[in-house]
Amino acid sequence: MRSFTFLFFFSTIVALALASTSYDNVQAISQVVEIHRLRPHTGVAGHPVPQLDCLSWRLAVETNNLQNWKLVPKQCENYVGHYMLGKQYRYDCEFVAETAIEYAKGLKLSGDGKDVWVFDIDETTLSNIPYYARSDVAFGAIPYNNTKFHAWVAEGKAPAIPSILGVYKTVLSLGIKPVFITGTRENFKNVRIANLKKVGYSNWAKLVLKGENYSGSAVEFKSSKRSELVKAGYRIVGNIGDQWTDLIGENVGARTFKVPDPMYYVG
Amino acid sequence: MRSFTFLFFFSTIVALALASTSYDNVQAISQVVEIHRLRPHTGVAGHPVPQLDCLSWRLAVETNNLQNWKLVPKQCENYVGHYMLGKQYRYDCEFVAETAIEYAKGLKLSGDGKDVWVFDIDETTLSNIPYYARSDVAFGAIPYNNTKFHAWVAEGKAPAIPSILGVYKTVLSLGIKPVFITGTRENFKNVRIANLKKVGYSNWAKLVLKGENYSGSAVEFKSSKRSELVKAGYRIVGNIGDQWTDLIGENVGARTFKVPDPMYYVG
Repeated sequence: MRSFTFLFFFSTIVALALASTSYDNVQAISQVVEIHRLRPHTGVAGHPVPQLDCLSWRLAVETNNLQNWKLVPKQCENYVGHYMLGKQYRYDCEFVAETAIEYAKGLKLSGDGKDVWVFDIDETTLSNIPYYARSDVAFGAIPYNNTKFHAWVAEGKAPAIPSILGVYKTVLSLGIKPVFITGTRENFKNVRIANLKKVGYSNWAKLVLKGENYSGSAVEFKSSKRSELVKAGYRIVGNIGDQWTDLIGENVGARTFKVPDPMYYVG
Repeated sequence: MRSFTFLFFFSTIVALALASTSYDNVQAISQVVEIHRLRPHTGVAGHPVPQLDCLSWRLAVETNNLQNWKLVPKQCENYVGHYMLGKQYRYDCEFVAETAIEYAKGLKLSGDGKDVWVFDIDETTLSNIPYYARSDVAFGAIPYNNTKFHAWVAEGKAPAIPSILGVYKTVLSLGIKPVFITGTRENFKNVRIANLKKVGYSNWAKLVLKGENYSGSAVEFKSSKRSELVKAGYRIVGNIGDQWTDLIGENVGARTFKVPDPMYYVG
């Protein structure tokens, strides 16, 4: 009886959680083949929970303490899935966006058309959740498969992260020019442009992709492209990305904003 | 009856949490005048909890998205208190330490005595939890009082953060020289040295404090002192601190480690 009550309670929670979602891109949810456990993996202080250290792991990822990691630890797969599909990821993105918008609105801009805001694409302006939630991807707990990921990118179906779309719209409305700098290779240029436009990003000063034969690191690539902007007389007033390699190196900009991403590391 | 059961359950949790603590510095706990609520402030997905955004706030602090903030938001006082006194802060520090130790052990060192590791002091090597847990400090939710904080520093009673003491001991054992760079003013030099030695930090290449009349920012001060090290031929192989202003700027070192600190911002 007790377990029946628990199950009833639990399935009510699941139903409520799904029913109450206000996530703009319902496709991101509907494509999820496996609904991950919605129980929090944090214990009340003093109660050891096997997955508890996943919180510490995620914090280490988000603060750039962990670098060059290849896989979400197996024991954190459910935790990361829960985080990405639950509300906390959305709240965290919204908080980043609110902070960035407040900062942008407080800027004294020159009005000379040289103020730019650098946006990364994957897991910053576009979300690959529908891909990462697949059972053969497992939120980054299964090794990265280049062919499969490229097939997903080629579909051009990545939804926007709604809160970051809000940053983009604010930036545009203030007269700051958006510049997209992405590690995506040049041969995906057309599909990427179509994808961005379809979900609401329709205007930018530059869209910089990685050359098909470029072999440098992410930090080198992004730094060199930002440095080109600065040499051309642009001022990078803001820089937003999900990877620390978007936010460190040369000419990072007047202010950086880290969007959460516990699913993969780009080095 | 139901509320009685809940209370009994809750007080058992509190008792267990206090009894099972293995925190090395029991004084840090025993001086706490007010035990903060041990209920997690995270809701199961779909359940709005007024304090839930405190998680997003803390993430924004830890990722340097929020800068120049003056106070822990009032609605997050209990959350921050819970975090700092609960196990998660310790787990998070331990994970930082494990990551730093693994990195240090993997270094190829020159053996010429020029490899150094930069340590910040407050909330990195020493903990001010006994001070911050006071009801007139409220984990940073009450405005900073210079006189009160200096009186606490002058007592020389700050405990070590045990896991970071472990990083220090590993670094020393590997032949890397510790360098302490702290924003504490020169007039506290003797009491700080006594405090460090009392809790286990007894050996260093340099201990750099801030001049009594220095008026630059934290980033400028720390950058200039690190640059002096580099000019003198030292290699900064690691750099650990609780503030992003310890970890950005000039010559940040080959690798940085951010120790959690949701209680205050040093700019």
